[in-house]
This record gives sequence, structure tokens and C-alpha cells, in this order.
Amino acid sequence: MAELLITGIRRLWQADPEGRMGWQAGAEMRELPVLHNAWLLCREGRIAGFGPMATCPEGDFHRLDAGGGDVLPSWVDSHTHIVYARSREEEFCHRIEGLTYAEIAAKGGGILNSATRLREMPEDELFEQALERLLEVVRMGTGAIEIKSGYGLTPESEWKMLKVIRRLRDQAPIPVRATLLAAHALPPEYREDRKGYVDLIVNEILPRAAGEGLADYVDVFCEKAFFQPDEMERILEAGWRHGLRGKVHTNQFYSLGGIQAAIRQRALSVDHLEVVTEEDIRDLLEAGTLPVLLPSAPFFLKDTYPPARRMIDAGLGVALASDFNPGTSPSGRMSFVLSLACTQMRMRPEEAVHAATINGACALELDRELGTIAPGKRANLQITRPIPSIAYLPYAFGSDLVETIVLDGNIYT
Amino acid sequence: MAELLITGIRRLWQADPEGRMGWQAGAEMRELPVLHNAWLLCREGRIAGFGPMATCPEGDFHRLDAGGGDVLPSWVDSHTHIVYARSREEEFCHRIEGLTYAEIAAKGGGILNSATRLREMPEDELFEQALERLLEVVRMGTGAIEIKSGYGLTPESEWKMLKVIRRLRDQAPIPVRATLLAAHALPPEYREDRKGYVDLIVNEILPRAAGEGLADYVDVFCEKAFFQPDEMERILEAGWRHGLRGKVHTNQFYSLGGIQAAIRQRALSVDHLEVVTEEDIRDLLEAGTLPVLLPSAPFFLKDTYPPARRMIDAGLGVALASDFNPGTSPSGRMSFVLSLACTQMRMRPEEAVHAATINGACALELDRELGTIAPGKRANLQITRPIPSIAYLPYAFGSDLVETIVLDGNIYT
Repeated sequence: MAELLITGIRRLWQADPEGRMGWQAGAEMRELPVLHNAWLLCREGRIAGFGPMATCPEGDFHRLDAGGGDVLPSWVDSHTHIVYARSREEEFCHRIEGLTYAEIAAKGGGILNSATRLREMPEDELFEQALERLLEVVRMGTGAIEIKSGYGLTPESEWKMLKVIRRLRDQAPIPVRATLLAAHALPPEYREDRKGYVDLIVNEILPRAAGEGLADYVDVFCEKAFFQPDEMERILEAGWRHGLRGKVHTNQFYSLGGIQAAIRQRALSVDHLEVVTEEDIRDLLEAGTLPVLLPSAPFFLKDTYPPARRMIDAGLGVALASDFNPGTSPSGRMSFVLSLACTQMRMRPEEAVHAATINGACALELDRELGTIAPGKRANLQITRPIPSIAYLPYAFGSDLVETIVLDGNIYT
Repeated sequence: MAELLITGIRRLWQADPEGRMGWQAGAEMRELPVLHNAWLLCREGRIAGFGPMATCPEGDFHRLDAGGGDVLPSWVDSHTHIVYARSREEEFCHRIEGLTYAEIAAKGGGILNSATRLREMPEDELFEQALERLLEVVRMGTGAIEIKSGYGLTPESEWKMLKVIRRLRDQAPIPVRATLLAAHALPPEYREDRKGYVDLIVNEILPRAAGEGLADYVDVFCEKAFFQPDEMERILEAGWRHGLRGKVHTNQFYSLGGIQAAIRQRALSVDHLEVVTEEDIRDLLEAGTLPVLLPSAPFFLKDTYPPARRMIDAGLGVALASDFNPGTSPSGRMSFVLSLACTQMRMRPEEAVHAATINGACALELDRELGTIAPGKRANLQITRPIPSIAYLPYAFGSDLVETIVLDGNIYT
């Protein structure tokens, strides 16, 4: 019987004996449940129990001494693009030289750059590269991840990406959710036929991806130079018909009504939101749609950050994710996303931890499974070296504070 | 005979057969010398030679296969405050809550907070904490470091800090330079007697530190709420009399004439420079004084970055350092300083590498010893995992790309 008893835990965060559901919002996000000087027992991959050291169970367990470190649930990274064919640091250099987004696109940069490269790369190589990225973020504390297609932009290439994501799901040590993002950019073949490409998605790509169980969600990049709110609505509608709920990119550079379109189509989450109006915030509050904020992208682009403080003060819940992708966020380090949230968006450390654990889990409908330390939930955990406080995590923005990863109740090495 | 032969190097950066001296400036900073597919031999702690694999020497060496990784000289971090008594994440939380610098100081925060704590902490504990920080940054690729006093602010406590820095110098695996920064803030005891504290520094603290060989440089925090240019000049003058050259904090929040005062006193470097005028840049160019930029501080404070692009385009050389300290830059990760330089200050990756290697070495007068890969220089090196280009280093801002550290010609573990 595989049982692991963790002792010597200075603070056990997100201790959740009731196994509460749903995301934390507004003022709730300030309070982070904690148990001091604790033990935690894992059995058959699940959390079997926890409590103060005075109640520590006896028995023939595998044992792990946390050495006075803190234990947190693993990060849930609910928005990534880690299947891609090559890094794009030459575009980063072009930006340093002062080229605009449009000029970089004219030089063959941007999403279409990744699409060209991805179409050429064999599936096995794509898989190997993506697996390496996935294992890198697992070592950094990520315990569940969402991965999008969207660098294919043809039925065959989107298919190839989704198959790679399925292989990752089969082989990764953590849960993987797949999102179909065929509407990431208009492929060159359809430059003069927007409707033709949306038709292709709605009539062919989406039904096939859903039918073969290759996608859990559908996504659309709703933005001035990409897809418009009405196009997004058509795709989200088609998603519902085939059992794929929407998780959408919107309001990264402009507020075009993408949030309202997503709400009308009962999307699970609206991601990015660098540019939001007071009306957008009111509408999100009323609809109960979850914003997913991705501060690594504005950091990397030296752009505007989402107004997280304003959102939470208005009563919204938010999730944090990495947006790991080769063009605008070449990093999946979630601990640094928390540092950005606190230093650049004035989120409190406790709010950032909620946003990256339980709220991230909600953004993937995995809150029954992950995001807090509750009996019966999957035992995906991170153990820090001894730290003086929870605020130290985002404060020490350059340090590697996580020393041990536990996945499915086993020490991950 | 301790000889280490490193083979399988994809690119050897800062390859410098001539052992050139001095810092790179202006357009020179764009060109980073490189040798492809190389070997490198270390002998008795020094670089003995290097060349293309076709010329690889035979012999009975210890061997290290770089596995297709790149080799760079270690980072030289020329501005830190790593001797301190405790982290200050509660001030970070106060800033998130919207408190101003003055309000945080009124709550007992800021430099005086560190001074109070440091005065109370025994020397041994201070040493142990600082050594841990030092070894953390060594594992991140730092191969030489400067450490300042300045949280003492009494003769006894400054003395205690300088003794800790001496112990670090004696026990650290990398070169350590010590800077006397008694003029970091006005201690509470002298609140009504500025001249009295400057007298104390000039007549007592500085002569003693210099006389006992406990300091290599003298520093002053020249800033509106701290020391004025004329006070700085008095202290730098006294430094010259006792053989300590100036390295000064100036123009972090205001341009008060600190740069000109430092130039008049022939300071080695002027550090921070978040706020500089065109006249400041002209004066620096004419004087040949080296600016040291510390982008982690404006990152952490969400403040203005130094105009590195403007400085380099004007022909200046710049160095990059971490400013590792508990209040405004709780990180010594130099690779992230390079990412900030490129993403937030539009420095080219090649410029950032120069700034963190040879130019950093010049900011500590260690350019005979470190900063490039030249025969006879100290063999302090970092070996990356295979990377597609040098731009990938600052681009992949969340990744740990350095796999092996070599110090004094030995693999550091």
C-alpha cells in the first residue's frame, strides 16, 4: 500500500478539511487557510488526511521530512501554448531594435512564424520538445496544465498539435487539459476569406477534435487584428454543440466587446484582460465568468498589466497563468508569475496564491481534484525550503524556493 | 597538476586571446567575441588556453564534456548588499497596500529597519545568513561579487559588517570586494546633526576601515532624503586620503548633481542612474566614469528604469549588477538582470553580456583577472545547457540555463 507521511511541515497552506468548491473572489482572496506545524498523509495518490503534529498518525509509512518548509498545493497553470516548433528570440531582438509588432509580422514573425515552423516539424520532434518544457515546469511546481493548439491553422497541423497534446497527457506526470485554438490567427491561405476559415473551424476542425476526444475546450483569439466578437461567438456556439466549452483570449490590446461575447456564450474563462473598462468588470461580476490573468506577457513585451487590483477590489475572482509561448511569454515559471502579480499588479501574496492554485484549478474545472489540500484530492504538492512567511515567496523573485515536488503522493525526482 | 580540459563547447563567448583591458562602450558592446566548437584548458585555477576542437590538446587531463552547451565567463556582480539581518517582505506588503516610501519609513521600514535589526544580530548569525545568499548566487553563475556595509551606521556595527564581509572573502569560493557604505542613511542618533555623522565617517569609521584593510572602496548614497553632493564629496575626498576610491549611489530618484560630484572626486563608478539628464550623460562620457545599472530595483519597486539605451547610443559603457538587498532588490540572480536589461531597457543581448562580465569586472578593477576568457585569467566559468543562440539567455527569462559552474578551474558542486 503506497502511503507517504510528510512531517515537519512549518505551515500547510490551503488546508481545506471541507473540500470546498469554486473559486475565491474579492475579499475572500485575502484569507489563505493555514495549519501550523503539521503532518500530511498521502494514500494511493490522494490526500488521506492532515493535522497538527500532536495528532500525527503512527504506522508503517514511507516518510518525508519537510525540514521546516512550507507545503502548498501545486500550481495549476490554466493557459499555455507549450507545443511549438522553435523559440522566437529573433523577434525579441527585433523588438529591442525598435520594430513594431506589424513590422515584425511583415518580417515573417508572430503566430504565423510559429505556424510555418510547426507545419514543417515531424510530430515526434514536436512532442519531445514540448515534453521537455512540460517537465521543466513540473520541476518548478506546476501540478496541472492546460495546453492549446493554434500554431497549426490547417486541419492537418491542428490535428498534429492535438495529437501531441494527447501524447503529453498520456505520458506527463500531471493532469493535462487540451484546448482547440484553431482561431489563433487567420492562416495565409485564408487571408481574403475570413468566413471560409471560420467555416472550416466550425464545420470540420472543431467537430473532428471534439469527436475524437482530442480537446476539452475551445478558444478564440478575439482581437483587432485577429478574430472579431461575432466570429468568436460563432465558434463558441459550435463548441457548445460539440461539448466543448469556451476559454477565450480577449482584451489583450483592445476592448472590442470580446468579454460580452464570451459571457453570452457562457465561456468558462476570459483570458488576458490587459485592457478592460469598468463596464467589462461589471459584466464579468454579474455573469460569474472567471478572468485569467497572464502577467508574463506584458512583462516580456513591456506593456500594460491587467488591472488585477481593480478587479479584485470590485469583487471578482481571478486566476493566474503563465501563457508560456515562444512569442510573448517564453517562460512557464509560475512562482515568477506570482512575483509579477504582487510587484506589478499589486496583488497581495495570499491573493496570488489563491489565483495560482484553487482559482487556476477552477479555470480548468479541476477544483474537485486540485487547488487545495483536501481529503480525497490528488496529492500534488510543493514543499519549500524554510521561508519566513508566505509573502517571502513572491518577494524573493529570483530564488528557487521549492525543494521537493510530490505528485500523486510520490516524491517526484 | 590540476588541469581540466573542457570539450564539446558549442560556443565559447568572450574568447579573448589578447587579454584586452578596460570596459566596452557604445557600439563596441554590440560585438561579442565567440569561438565555435571549442575546447578550453584550465591549469592551476587559470585559463591556460582554448581553441577550435580541431586543435584540441592530448594529454592526461581531468575532462569535462560541455555537451554542446555554451561557455561564458562568470557574471561579475559589482553592487550588492548581501550582509543583512533579515528579509523585509512586510514592507513589500505595505507597498502593495499603497503605502508610500515615507509612510513605510514612519512605520520603521527602510534602511533604518535593517540597521536596527543588524545591530541586534550576532556576527556569526549575520555571517551564516550572508554566506547562504552568496552561495545561492554562485550557483546562479556569479563568479565575483562586491558587498557593501551600510546597515550598521555606528562605528561598531559598520565594523561588524565589514568583519563579516572579510570572513566571506576568506571563505567564499569567489573573489569578494568590500565597500564601506557608512553613508547609507543618517542614523537616528544624528538626526539633528548631519555634520556630526559625516565627521564621524571621515575622521573615524573610514580611516579605521582603510587602515585595517577591511574595505576596498567607499560609497555614499547621494539622494534627496539621504546625503547631499557636498557631503558625498567630503567623504570621497577622505577616501582618497586613505586609499579608498569612490563607488557611489546616485540619481536613483533625483538628479541633484551627484554625478558631477562623483566625477570631480574621480569615482570609479556611479551606480543606479534611474534619473539622468542629457548633461549627466555628456559629463560621464567626457570623464570616462563607469555607470552601473541595477534594473532589479526599479523592477521590484515598479519604478523608472535607467535609460540604458540612450546611454549606450551616446557612446557610454555600462555595467549591470544585481543590487541584491532586502528592501528594494531581494534577488541576486544575474541572469534575470540580463533579462530585465533586454526586455525593460532595450539592451541587446550582446550588450547585456558585456555589461555583466567584462564591464562588471572593470567596476571592481578585476578586469585583469575576470570578465573575459583570456589566457592567464582566473578560470571562473559558466556552462549552459544547449541553447539556440546567445539571445536565448535573456529571452528565456524564467529558465535555469546554467548547468555547470567552474571556479578556479574546478567544477563547483
